[in-house]
Amino acid sequence: MTQGRFITFEGGEGTGKSTQVARLVERLRARDLEVVQTREPGGSDGAEDIRNIALNGDAGRWSPMTETLLMFAARSDHLERTIRPALEAGRWVVCDRFADSSRAYQGAGGGTPAAFIESLDAAIVGATQPDLTLVFDLPVEVGLERAFGRGLFETRFESKGLEFHERLRAGFRDVAAAHPERCVIIDAEGDQDTVEARVWAAVEGRLL
Amino acid sequence: MTQGRFITFEGGEGTGKSTQVARLVERLRARDLEVVQTREPGGSDGAEDIRNIALNGDAGRWSPMTETLLMFAARSDHLERTIRPALEAGRWVVCDRFADSSRAYQGAGGGTPAAFIESLDAAIVGATQPDLTLVFDLPVEVGLERAFGRGLFETRFESKGLEFHERLRAGFRDVAAAHPERCVIIDAEGDQDTVEARVWAAVEGRLL
Repeated sequence: MTQGRFITFEGGEGTGKSTQVARLVERLRARDLEVVQTREPGGSDGAEDIRNIALNGDAGRWSPMTETLLMFAARSDHLERTIRPALEAGRWVVCDRFADSSRAYQGAGGGTPAAFIESLDAAIVGATQPDLTLVFDLPVEVGLERAFGRGLFETRFESKGLEFHERLRAGFRDVAAAHPERCVIIDAEGDQDTVEARVWAAVEGRLL
Repeated sequence: MTQGRFITFEGGEGTGKSTQVARLVERLRARDLEVVQTREPGGSDGAEDIRNIALNGDAGRWSPMTETLLMFAARSDHLERTIRPALEAGRWVVCDRFADSSRAYQGAGGGTPAAFIESLDAAIVGATQPDLTLVFDLPVEVGLERAFGRGLFETRFESKGLEFHERLRAGFRDVAAAHPERCVIIDAEGDQDTVEARVWAAVEGRLL
């Protein structure tokens, strides 16, 4: 049995990742590949429990450092219970968000030191790095409008919110630049079929 | 306003720590000191939520690595929301379990690499090391009988359980040996008044 392949989708709000995860899983299954579709935070019983406390409550409930530890606790469980067993059984794993979201959200966005995040990544993710990471990229305003609609966008996202999302986008682009061996930036503008074609071209070119 | 003092109680099951925490808090308050009594895991709203998922469920719910991350996530919140604000306001903090329990339970007991625990301690606890750590020490059989009663002890703790608790005791003694500047081993055999006198001698000798 050969080792499976590990594909992660990354990007900010409203980039259309989740739709494309489902489309890619369908295309891979149509090729008779066994595929596990999963997500972070979550993807195993324990990690879903951690997700519930990590994502709920008001914005200041957790400091970026605490949030980083919660995300890696969930990731540790997800890797042990879901991702590694699937890969070892020869399955493909397609995951909506993974460690690069910690680099972008808690690191570039929240200010957790990059060295701390990298030390956790080395200890917890270790050799289970993705074979391919698709970094969905979109101008921040376009993504926030897609995610929340113009009305909500105007009332809720003042300049501080926008700055956070700009740091997030820059954080994801920095990850892609630092890890060209596994990352492909996907232009997420355009209709879903156009984006799907871009995703498929990356998967075919890198993994098939 | 002077900085407060930070005292932690550590040790295995049935060593009588919690009773002595309450007695020490009472004695310090009788000296007109402002004292915050707290515990780990927990001690702040967020940390208590993490405690609920970390301690519940069956014994194999979390791997030692995941458990280590959950414990330090709770500790991070506890430090930020409870311990550091109290110390900065000049209060004394008396805490039932702290980072040495991660060294003993997840490290010596569970097999999490010591270097990983020390890197988390440096990042999360940092300079907020306890001024005094009282390490309650007791033969494992005595502690388990106190905690669970002889009947339960005989049925529930087979050799593997006993070995775990022996590793735990050795782990706490190793911590005390590695940090003599803050640790005092408390002989936890004897009645509560005798142990209280030992605790008070250590606190007076080191901090008053």
